[in-house]
Amino acid sequence: MDYANLYRNKKVIITGGLGFIGSNLARRLAGLGADITLVDSLIPSYGGNLYNIKDIESKVTVNIADVRDAFSMNYLIRGKDYLFNLAGTLSHIDSMEDPYTDLEINCRSQLSILEACRNNNSDIKIVFAGTRGQYGKVDYLPVNEKHLMHPSDINGINNIAGEMYHMLYNDIYSIRAVSLRLTNTYGPRHQMRHPRQGFLNWFIRLAIDDQTIEIYGDGKQLRDFNYADDVVEAILLAGANDKANGEVFNLGSGNPISVVDTAEKIIQLTGKGRYKFVLFPDDKKKIEVGDYYADYSKIKVLLGWEPKVNMKEGLMKTIDFYIKNKKYYWA
Amino acid sequence: MDYANLYRNKKVIITGGLGFIGSNLARRLAGLGADITLVDSLIPSYGGNLYNIKDIESKVTVNIADVRDAFSMNYLIRGKDYLFNLAGTLSHIDSMEDPYTDLEINCRSQLSILEACRNNNSDIKIVFAGTRGQYGKVDYLPVNEKHLMHPSDINGINNIAGEMYHMLYNDIYSIRAVSLRLTNTYGPRHQMRHPRQGFLNWFIRLAIDDQTIEIYGDGKQLRDFNYADDVVEAILLAGANDKANGEVFNLGSGNPISVVDTAEKIIQLTGKGRYKFVLFPDDKKKIEVGDYYADYSKIKVLLGWEPKVNMKEGLMKTIDFYIKNKKYYWA
Repeated sequence: MDYANLYRNKKVIITGGLGFIGSNLARRLAGLGADITLVDSLIPSYGGNLYNIKDIESKVTVNIADVRDAFSMNYLIRGKDYLFNLAGTLSHIDSMEDPYTDLEINCRSQLSILEACRNNNSDIKIVFAGTRGQYGKVDYLPVNEKHLMHPSDINGINNIAGEMYHMLYNDIYSIRAVSLRLTNTYGPRHQMRHPRQGFLNWFIRLAIDDQTIEIYGDGKQLRDFNYADDVVEAILLAGANDKANGEVFNLGSGNPISVVDTAEKIIQLTGKGRYKFVLFPDDKKKIEVGDYYADYSKIKVLLGWEPKVNMKEGLMKTIDFYIKNKKYYWA
Repeated sequence: MDYANLYRNKKVIITGGLGFIGSNLARRLAGLGADITLVDSLIPSYGGNLYNIKDIESKVTVNIADVRDAFSMNYLIRGKDYLFNLAGTLSHIDSMEDPYTDLEINCRSQLSILEACRNNNSDIKIVFAGTRGQYGKVDYLPVNEKHLMHPSDINGINNIAGEMYHMLYNDIYSIRAVSLRLTNTYGPRHQMRHPRQGFLNWFIRLAIDDQTIEIYGDGKQLRDFNYADDVVEAILLAGANDKANGEVFNLGSGNPISVVDTAEKIIQLTGKGRYKFVLFPDDKKKIEVGDYYADYSKIKVLLGWEPKVNMKEGLMKTIDFYIKNKKYYWA
């Protein structure tokens, strides 16, 4: 589906808009001529970073607000054509340490955002970002959307509830909504201050700094990576196509790679760093899911999406970006 | 598994203990010699009723508290051997009108109860009451536990989260927990003041009062009923058997019956009342799931449970109970 003209002058709101995927999406939508509002709470340990939109700041409206703030969301949602609902915590380990915050953000806030839409703007189209974490330890590979969900952490459970609220409001109240279950996503504009939101970008930081990457266990578990631009493309296709309404879609790469091979690739492309194996920390071992990779044929067939950026190309762009912009992401 | 002596002198706590299933369970546990604490908030429109335990009140300790009150739950959970975690809202329609209250009770409170167990009593064994509402409109019949969950109301979604928290705490923190996905349950000690928690008991009230039962649509949708005593038996078996830990089980009857046939049966056994067909109200039509009946072979094989009370016998006992105790349930 060609959405080249669809988003022009459309009013779009992106929750988590200063974060990793939100800001990459904003950049693309700015190029398409959309009227963009970015909502972000800039919680220090999360992904929001004003530098992420430095070169497009004249083309977007930034509104600092937390998705838990139902009053503000109730206002901000009005008159918008599209909601790209990307705000949410992503950390498996944080959700175990502070399950209530995870519940408030991923579960309760999703409900209040949907209630805001129902009460003030039921014509809006919503794209929700789900996660592979909803599946937990897998029963079979590759994982398609019919795979049972039995998450291994609180974050996965709360994301299931958040996704299901969206599907319910689509079915019952005809508020068009679609969920994309993202796999590990990497690329420019990810937060780089701690490893609690995924290991790939963290490995890149360590390599750039010529540090030692610690690999838990044997590092042979498989992961499925998407480059940020490919995820943005999927989000825009899902927003544009009403065939997607009420549907959930896996994203994936078609090329699973082990954690240790990922580290080797990063070290090779960066020309710096090294890795060593260490014992799996207890808290992380407990919620480790083993191999994961997705069957993304549903979105390929229905929406015509497939990833276009191969890992070598994606990693080179990512490494290049952080070498140039290190001071805005390391501190 | 013979649990005749297992529960003797054991400290058990039942949330929702003054409610329908809670009070029937308390009665059985009193007979088995357990040391019973009933926790209930007696919210007027919910199921709690002090008359439910009138004839066993010397054998139980009643503690009025709401499961949303994390401080009290944190204290009450200490030193208990078993938690029968039955508190929760059950109303499909209420959950759509007030989704936040449903979330607080079925989702957030479950998390705080589990945190209380983790912090103060990780040796406790928990039996959680899930619901057929977690499945939503079914993809196939009979529904087994591998059926995907895509609920048709907020209550179903929040119950999924509640159940998944239990499974997670079983897997990660070794707090033994099992979930029973109850189908429609009927019997003595159900609230009889409004129809928002299931239609069967409401039909019985109308018949006893020689009123007209209104059947929405053609009334041909199938339902699966369990008599309260059979559900109590399943709960006690699940509590007694550590093979159940980390597992979810459907309950069911093996004898699905249509709504209209249910009405006819009740009218025939009561010797009073009549029914008429009316148009499906819009709000109820939207969340109506059509036919439902469960495959309960998993609990039959693993725990040796099957329903023993046939519908005629169960209905007769139920009708008899409410005719005798009408004044305690109608007002």
